[in-house]
Amino acid sequence: MKVLSIIAEYNPFHYGHLYHLNEAKKSVNPDITVCILASNFLQRGEPSIVDKWSRTKMALHAGIDLVIELPVAFSCRSAFYYATGAVTSLVKSGVVTHLSFGTEANNLLQLQKIAQVINNEDALYKSVLHDFLGAGFSYPKARILTLEKVLDLKNDDLRELDNPNNILALAYLQVLDILKNDITPVGILRKGDYHSLDPNHGFASASAIRKLIKNNDPNWKNHVPSFTREILENDFKDGKGPLFLDNLEQNIIAIIRRTNPLELQKIIEINEGLENRIYQSAQKHSSIKELLTELKTKRYTYTKIQRSLTHIYLNYEKSLDLKEPKYLRILGFNSKGQSLLKHMKSSSELPLINRFSNAFKIVDSTGKKILDLEARASDLYSLALPNPNQRYGKQDYYNSPIKYLI
Amino acid sequence: MKVLSIIAEYNPFHYGHLYHLNEAKKSVNPDITVCILASNFLQRGEPSIVDKWSRTKMALHAGIDLVIELPVAFSCRSAFYYATGAVTSLVKSGVVTHLSFGTEANNLLQLQKIAQVINNEDALYKSVLHDFLGAGFSYPKARILTLEKVLDLKNDDLRELDNPNNILALAYLQVLDILKNDITPVGILRKGDYHSLDPNHGFASASAIRKLIKNNDPNWKNHVPSFTREILENDFKDGKGPLFLDNLEQNIIAIIRRTNPLELQKIIEINEGLENRIYQSAQKHSSIKELLTELKTKRYTYTKIQRSLTHIYLNYEKSLDLKEPKYLRILGFNSKGQSLLKHMKSSSELPLINRFSNAFKIVDSTGKKILDLEARASDLYSLALPNPNQRYGKQDYYNSPIKYLI
Repeated sequence: MKVLSIIAEYNPFHYGHLYHLNEAKKSVNPDITVCILASNFLQRGEPSIVDKWSRTKMALHAGIDLVIELPVAFSCRSAFYYATGAVTSLVKSGVVTHLSFGTEANNLLQLQKIAQVINNEDALYKSVLHDFLGAGFSYPKARILTLEKVLDLKNDDLRELDNPNNILALAYLQVLDILKNDITPVGILRKGDYHSLDPNHGFASASAIRKLIKNNDPNWKNHVPSFTREILENDFKDGKGPLFLDNLEQNIIAIIRRTNPLELQKIIEINEGLENRIYQSAQKHSSIKELLTELKTKRYTYTKIQRSLTHIYLNYEKSLDLKEPKYLRILGFNSKGQSLLKHMKSSSELPLINRFSNAFKIVDSTGKKILDLEARASDLYSLALPNPNQRYGKQDYYNSPIKYLI
Repeated sequence: MKVLSIIAEYNPFHYGHLYHLNEAKKSVNPDITVCILASNFLQRGEPSIVDKWSRTKMALHAGIDLVIELPVAFSCRSAFYYATGAVTSLVKSGVVTHLSFGTEANNLLQLQKIAQVINNEDALYKSVLHDFLGAGFSYPKARILTLEKVLDLKNDDLRELDNPNNILALAYLQVLDILKNDITPVGILRKGDYHSLDPNHGFASASAIRKLIKNNDPNWKNHVPSFTREILENDFKDGKGPLFLDNLEQNIIAIIRRTNPLELQKIIEINEGLENRIYQSAQKHSSIKELLTELKTKRYTYTKIQRSLTHIYLNYEKSLDLKEPKYLRILGFNSKGQSLLKHMKSSSELPLINRFSNAFKIVDSTGKKILDLEARASDLYSLALPNPNQRYGKQDYYNSPIKYLI
């Protein structure tokens, strides 16, 4: 049985995603397709525009058979931890045979080689990387400069390696390499300039679409399939979205203004004085935009700072030490997905979670921490939804997996 | 020299306050009048409708000569600690001769007697009070029942002793008794039903006026002197107010949703399982109103719960252990006030603070904690002001004392 998997945020699901899904299916010809879907806070440190349940519906509409949650413990982390969470879920499910992701198809082998080189980092590699980081470069940029300097890689191989999608692709390949498994990576050539909104230049990116939505520009509807449009329109009508990081800014800044920098240092990924810079900045400024403008440096990208602000909001502490998933939570399925689930009951190394309220009984102590963080993130997500009646908590407990059964 | 003092919130200053000030002046015939003005968060656990600087202007306009800050460490505490902060400031200023407060003029001696009885609490008193508290009564109510049961006080003496103003009057008398000093208490008969808005029933209360403002009812303007109206209208025009607890609700509930109940227990006045009840309630509900409705009991009054929510917002920890003021911060003065300030330079037991930025150098370690909490409270106050451009922090550093010099 061929089981194709995709790791996605679908924030929101657009024509580019549909193209990727269909190309991957053409390439693999799978019996079934699984998606690991990011929870309510995403890799770039932002809340999703609509919640994971609505994005699950989009995935199922698009033809994904089974949707599994990437817990917020991993969905809102830097690329390597994001990839670790997602790829480990796929490997431990015991059923996945292929993993498809967007990249430059021609360079998949090159990317695999680079991933192996990074994984087997030797003393020289480490030392040079350390120097570039010390010089103030961001991690992705420092890594490119290191590879260029110490390894037998041509500049051409490193092309666009600090593009967010390539960073993720590389991380998936790294984790596949580390976990020693049989999953076949399937690179799908990305088509056109994702940041353009001109149909002649390929698909509009999710961020371009979100920008239109934020600006109340109805033109967003032209860049998504009709099911996405309907799901979003319904959510917006009910005030269940759209949600942007800006909607959380007062909550986040209130938290920083009341928190000692020593406490901020306990938050994951916050180190080396960033806690003081964030604290000082929030004492003066009152918007995320002002904070990002002040805190952005060569070393700390907007994404890195956004993620830190979101980690503070979620109170995601280093001490939680959440290294890999401890359960597979089902967000939705169709009939084919249901049959795969039956299979997974025996194949999966991780417990399957259908009902959140039962989950705490069947996971280990680390799993409980992942669940706690998940519930907290959902409580903190709903709190800033446009409609006050949608701001109730415990939504993880109230929602069952979405079923698209014929 | 006769120095009359008043302890006030002026939230906002209204005709009742003016009546009180003028009656007190008639009664004492002072050379000068001083006000201890509550900071930006008040005794009932709410932010003030406009900030302490605007309320200082009201006091100066009304004819107060010198305005001294009651730090938020005391202004947002239960009656006894509020009174301790304010009365200690007056006593340690070394200049105050009279303290006037609203009460039933006829019962000032009775109130003094009750205050002494409470201060000299004997074993029986303590034991009976403990029993009533254990039975679930609020502290003020339990105290009345205790006095009624064990002391030689007629029910008539205890009349309205759980009215917020009488609770404060009693607390002032308690602290005056404890501090053994020469300040003469001056009770001014409160006039009419403060909760009515009918001019025939006396003055509108500050809470009635705030309610009109909250409901956008322009009728509030009829219940305040013209200077109050102008100050408020200017602030509202600039988006520097009005501020209500509801404006902070998302910030507060976000903080509770992300905070472990064990951490909530570190907050002042939160004990005996209240931390769990608050945590559970905030996980479900998304408004202060819903929280108050769920958490209110015979024992925990709305005021008590509001104060706890505000203490959580301010991160006011028990461990700060702030028992009495350690400085006198000047909020404003006129020429007479300025001359009194010169006198206070030699008479005051506490350092006088004119500039916040210099303050940290001239206070002791507890004083620094009081200042830290004050700055944090101001940063957290401004964050929810209607106009985003008013939400900047560090306003304590930017504002100098208000001067009304001729």
